[in-house]
Amino acid sequence: MIHTRLVFSSLLLFAASAAAQTPTTIDAESLATAVRLRDKAMTRSEAYIIIESLTTEVGARMAGSPGDALAVAWAERKFRELGYDRVYTEPVTFPIWHRRREAGEILTPFPHKLALTAIGASIGTGAVPLEGTVIEYATLEALKEARAEDVHGKIVFIGNRMQRSRDGSGYGPAVTARTEGAGIAAKLGATALLIRSIGTDGNRTPHTGLGADPEKALLDPERAGKLARTASGIAIVPTAIPAAALSNPDADLLSRVLERSRPVRVRLDLDVGFEGEYTSANVIGEITGSDRPDEAVVIGAHLDSWDLGMGAIDDGAGVALTMAAGYLIKAHGKRPKRSIRVVAFANEEQGLYGGRAYATAHGADVAKIVLGAESDFGAGRVYEIRFGIGVHARDAARQIAEVLAPIGITLREEGGSPGPDLGAIAARGMAWAQLSQDGSAYFDYHHTANDTLDKVNPKDLDQNVAAYAVLAWLAAQADGDFGSAPKSAPAAQ
Amino acid sequence: MIHTRLVFSSLLLFAASAAAQTPTTIDAESLATAVRLRDKAMTRSEAYIIIESLTTEVGARMAGSPGDALAVAWAERKFRELGYDRVYTEPVTFPIWHRRREAGEILTPFPHKLALTAIGASIGTGAVPLEGTVIEYATLEALKEARAEDVHGKIVFIGNRMQRSRDGSGYGPAVTARTEGAGIAAKLGATALLIRSIGTDGNRTPHTGLGADPEKALLDPERAGKLARTASGIAIVPTAIPAAALSNPDADLLSRVLERSRPVRVRLDLDVGFEGEYTSANVIGEITGSDRPDEAVVIGAHLDSWDLGMGAIDDGAGVALTMAAGYLIKAHGKRPKRSIRVVAFANEEQGLYGGRAYATAHGADVAKIVLGAESDFGAGRVYEIRFGIGVHARDAARQIAEVLAPIGITLREEGGSPGPDLGAIAARGMAWAQLSQDGSAYFDYHHTANDTLDKVNPKDLDQNVAAYAVLAWLAAQADGDFGSAPKSAPAAQ
Repeated sequence: MIHTRLVFSSLLLFAASAAAQTPTTIDAESLATAVRLRDKAMTRSEAYIIIESLTTEVGARMAGSPGDALAVAWAERKFRELGYDRVYTEPVTFPIWHRRREAGEILTPFPHKLALTAIGASIGTGAVPLEGTVIEYATLEALKEARAEDVHGKIVFIGNRMQRSRDGSGYGPAVTARTEGAGIAAKLGATALLIRSIGTDGNRTPHTGLGADPEKALLDPERAGKLARTASGIAIVPTAIPAAALSNPDADLLSRVLERSRPVRVRLDLDVGFEGEYTSANVIGEITGSDRPDEAVVIGAHLDSWDLGMGAIDDGAGVALTMAAGYLIKAHGKRPKRSIRVVAFANEEQGLYGGRAYATAHGADVAKIVLGAESDFGAGRVYEIRFGIGVHARDAARQIAEVLAPIGITLREEGGSPGPDLGAIAARGMAWAQLSQDGSAYFDYHHTANDTLDKVNPKDLDQNVAAYAVLAWLAAQADGDFGSAPKSAPAAQ
Repeated sequence: MIHTRLVFSSLLLFAASAAAQTPTTIDAESLATAVRLRDKAMTRSEAYIIIESLTTEVGARMAGSPGDALAVAWAERKFRELGYDRVYTEPVTFPIWHRRREAGEILTPFPHKLALTAIGASIGTGAVPLEGTVIEYATLEALKEARAEDVHGKIVFIGNRMQRSRDGSGYGPAVTARTEGAGIAAKLGATALLIRSIGTDGNRTPHTGLGADPEKALLDPERAGKLARTASGIAIVPTAIPAAALSNPDADLLSRVLERSRPVRVRLDLDVGFEGEYTSANVIGEITGSDRPDEAVVIGAHLDSWDLGMGAIDDGAGVALTMAAGYLIKAHGKRPKRSIRVVAFANEEQGLYGGRAYATAHGADVAKIVLGAESDFGAGRVYEIRFGIGVHARDAARQIAEVLAPIGITLREEGGSPGPDLGAIAARGMAWAQLSQDGSAYFDYHHTANDTLDKVNPKDLDQNVAAYAVLAWLAAQADGDFGSAPKSAPAAQ
């Protein structure tokens, strides 16, 4: 997952639109089936088998890499194997960012090799490695206050450390160093940017991630004007200067060396950058509804990963658990009234391309999507559900939450977000639910080489499948729709 | 630290040599001083400052690498800064093993890059990367039972997983895959060896370590005959075939791919091997004794590290805490009766060269060393003390243990080992003590890129300093000697 800045306030909505629409409710038989689905998933779902397959047979699948095509073929095959009624793809085009080679070292006063990784969308350092003197700023805010004469010609290092929390709330304040640092440092005349990895671990496995804020890029007209356009109509700009993230221990080291108050020279050799364009696909599996097949509940996750790890927690887990939820509903024998559509989105990591393509293709028919929910926060247990829905659907939301309560999920009637992939179509009026996962360990592994299958607990995955199966089934069965959650002003996450 | 096979049984000794030697004891004033040293160290020692200096100003210091010379210069400087009375070096010569480049990948049926590292003493794969089909054995024992026709021409993969424990007892049974695997696989006609890292973590940071058992090589006459001799008279043989360790997640992956029962082809590109010879040094700092300056307590640790990490827990911690213990004794103002000698040993990791050179240089005068103790098991707290001493020194050992009890250290009157560096001189009759550290987390980081300063807890380090200062001080003050612990038969650790 990447940073999602927009927060939709369902609480405000509840208060604001208390119009006289017929309340949406769910019948007792559908609720009883939901309980059975939940208990079946908690006993054992297919999710772990699916993620084992994806991480073993595909592994790393960075957008536009050979793994991308393998992953698309895998997802089509897997949907078919699982018995989905319809399996199809929709094209998603984007520029290809390549990571060919990356290395860095402290040259003086003490030679050290550095564990670092280029951040996504970074430009390379050129044919000859870049060398320079390092200047450290504690935070992006401190860099913003810096004088150009101090920064000019130097390598800027931003040392801010992400804080651990269950809800991932430490990510937003820290990640701006990655998404905005290069631009700000470049304006002050810096030659390159180093950041402390946006991660909570102490491993020599640096965290990559996009060196831009895709939502800001899209929403900010001034910045949007600079975007290189592709066939899909959108693209992320390359960073203004080469940019890389140090592992936490390497960031500690660089700070300690800098504390000795001697000029610290660093060499960076990054052979990375955009070259060419690629057309991948959103891969979609549908369980066709019995009564209203043209209406659908959409659940999903993103199929692409970064290149360093095997994409287990980001976001193989989401793909596996939503696929397994649809399979569970299909396999239990009773067709849902509305269709259930599972979307494996293309290229989320480098600019939300899959989600945007989906919104472009289906935005006009958004009313046909009764509810959407995505999973993109690892493989931890779900502890909370929030909704972005019309007030007339509040009782149905509570009915859903009641089925989820026995597996440790509580309803929270405020805040939340549709997530990065569903953000674009939610902005067009799609109702959504957010199933919040325990992300305490997520940022130990997020966007690193350590994103591997052993970080996934099968029982936790089963609990997620239970939650998504209950949610998708009950939304598909509801008598009435869920309306939509109009956007509030952007808020802190 | 590397695997130490010899275990000396002090219990047996206590029983066997109940001769009529005057019991060694320690006077009350010395015991009172020991309590003050202990409490001072527990409040705050210099150890963390020293290890911060070593890991920041030197970092990785593989034997024979540029970091080796930097480390020797650092140790001499640091001993002087700390006010040691005598600082000197003794030469240690060994062949240089180089790690220039290493990479590996699964080619078919599913392409994956592998996080691996060559094991020490490995030969390279040559100018062209080596490709082959993989055959897996669960353990070294299973490989020993294998038929040559199954192994011939293949890459052998040994999948055994090390178990976590406080005392590191999972290491011995697992590490034979690394120390013996290549030789056994080569005899069966294998082209290369892959092992699961000998480590307890789940990180993509593979564990290196010597691909030979240096103690066995020295003790086994048949094998010793094959050793390449250097100026120091000993050397480790290169592995018979290229050998590398996969990180635990990569070993999991390879096993999962192999479970699919299709030929699995792997490519290995290891540009590693022995080239040239280097003369490093044991660096020694002495606090000169007041009454018997020619007699000494020896404490120490090894100064070299592997190249992947910064050598914080292996064995910067040992160097720092023994240096700090000597400093504490010197700084408290009262000179010890015997000298206290702190030795920073050269090249432990690649064949115990420093310890052997020390035994060769001082073995004839071993009676002048009243007691030896080394620290080479990370930075965890000490929980136990064991002795390899004469029965007449048992009361003194108990007096020492009484001072250590309040900081959580209990006396165990059986087993133990002098450690890898002091093993050679202990075999010549030096009495020793073993201060056992909690190694529960040690093998998460041991011999990996993750061996960095953040893995060291300053308070735990202080507790170690307290233990070594008490031990060294009281051994230096003892009225009488500690005898020696004759070797028993090799036993399981």
